[in-house]
Amino acid sequence: MNIVLLQDTDFIQPGRAVLNGRRFEHLVRVNRVHENEKLRCGILNGNLGDAVVREIRNDGIELEVPEFKEAPPRALPLTLVLAMPRPKMLKRIIESATSIGIKQIYLVNSWRVEKSYWKSPVLEPEKLNGYVRLGLEQAKDTIVPDIHLRRLFSPFVNKELPEIAADKIKIAAHPTSVNKCPFGVNKPVVLAIGPEGGFIDREIDTFKAQGFDIFHIGERILRVETAVTFLTSRLFI
Amino acid sequence: MNIVLLQDTDFIQPGRAVLNGRRFEHLVRVNRVHENEKLRCGILNGNLGDAVVREIRNDGIELEVPEFKEAPPRALPLTLVLAMPRPKMLKRIIESATSIGIKQIYLVNSWRVEKSYWKSPVLEPEKLNGYVRLGLEQAKDTIVPDIHLRRLFSPFVNKELPEIAADKIKIAAHPTSVNKCPFGVNKPVVLAIGPEGGFIDREIDTFKAQGFDIFHIGERILRVETAVTFLTSRLFI
Repeated sequence: MNIVLLQDTDFIQPGRAVLNGRRFEHLVRVNRVHENEKLRCGILNGNLGDAVVREIRNDGIELEVPEFKEAPPRALPLTLVLAMPRPKMLKRIIESATSIGIKQIYLVNSWRVEKSYWKSPVLEPEKLNGYVRLGLEQAKDTIVPDIHLRRLFSPFVNKELPEIAADKIKIAAHPTSVNKCPFGVNKPVVLAIGPEGGFIDREIDTFKAQGFDIFHIGERILRVETAVTFLTSRLFI
Repeated sequence: MNIVLLQDTDFIQPGRAVLNGRRFEHLVRVNRVHENEKLRCGILNGNLGDAVVREIRNDGIELEVPEFKEAPPRALPLTLVLAMPRPKMLKRIIESATSIGIKQIYLVNSWRVEKSYWKSPVLEPEKLNGYVRLGLEQAKDTIVPDIHLRRLFSPFVNKELPEIAADKIKIAAHPTSVNKCPFGVNKPVVLAIGPEGGFIDREIDTFKAQGFDIFHIGERILRVETAVTFLTSRLFI
């Protein structure tokens, strides 16, 4: 937790916030904060700044929160279209994708996605918000990414994606492509990454029909989590 | 498991291997292999090729293994010097670092590394080998990286590292540096990455004294696992 994220409901009056639960426990047990200590904070979807610990009680910690003036770090102009990963991986992917600054994430169906993944409790908004917060706290960011769930591949790629991807560079990562993924693009990009085992040929054709270029990322097959970071790092340098 | 890794002890005679345990279970339950099916394999520290499933028994699977002729994917000319991560992260870091092609990994002590990490069972050679194999199987690679444990920071950085880093580009990642990490270096690099919370100033000075350049990777603080992939992807494009 490199910053403490504050939200409206934490405030008991203007300039005064009380934290309990996970953040309270973490601040007391891990960070071992003491009274009058400055604490690096961010307002959810707002600015960054320093709060001051005013009181540590048995069940919570009270902060004095002045008006924050520092802008959060720059977001990446990247829209990530990701075949729904297995639940255990999804948590980490949401956290790491958030930490590197991705703000638009579409989780879509694909032939090789197991149906059961769509019923996982990790997809509940409260759970997803939790992973997002871990990523934001890690990266000292405050801006919550939008996570969209799209259970039907074709309607999404054929009808919704063209609008999302208009005026953006369109890339789908696919191991059998002969072209290596470009680097240093530094412009708005829509990046599609398949499931374990990859998109099937028909899905790749659907992306191609929507103007996507198909690239590989080397001889190595990477886990989706690793591939997201690896490709994002190449694209924006 | 994108390839099956074979080792000497799997062979019952030249050209015949029998698998049981984890690989057997995985092939039967997840990959649902059948007799006469071709199976993408690699010889540990050797070549890649196709074996053929000759018999599936209750307790194992017998493969016909011709001489393999395909070389494994290219290794990265990167030596990673990593402050010992917490055990839960170490597993994933070894797996992902292996999958992206890193072959030299030094796990070193640092001021902010908790002493208990050095006593973790994940550091037993058999455990480390297990994480390495997962990374190799993922990336269709066969070449086992060397993992070195160095419990003393100063003797390592002052005495051993200069020899390791001779003729290589020397980079230490540190959030407070004013210089952004270069990209597309594509030459032998030694990359040092600190623990959660970063190296302390004295450690950074020790790296500087050995000719290391200190770079940040942006305003965001990344988890070590994410940082390893993020930086490696930038350095070799």
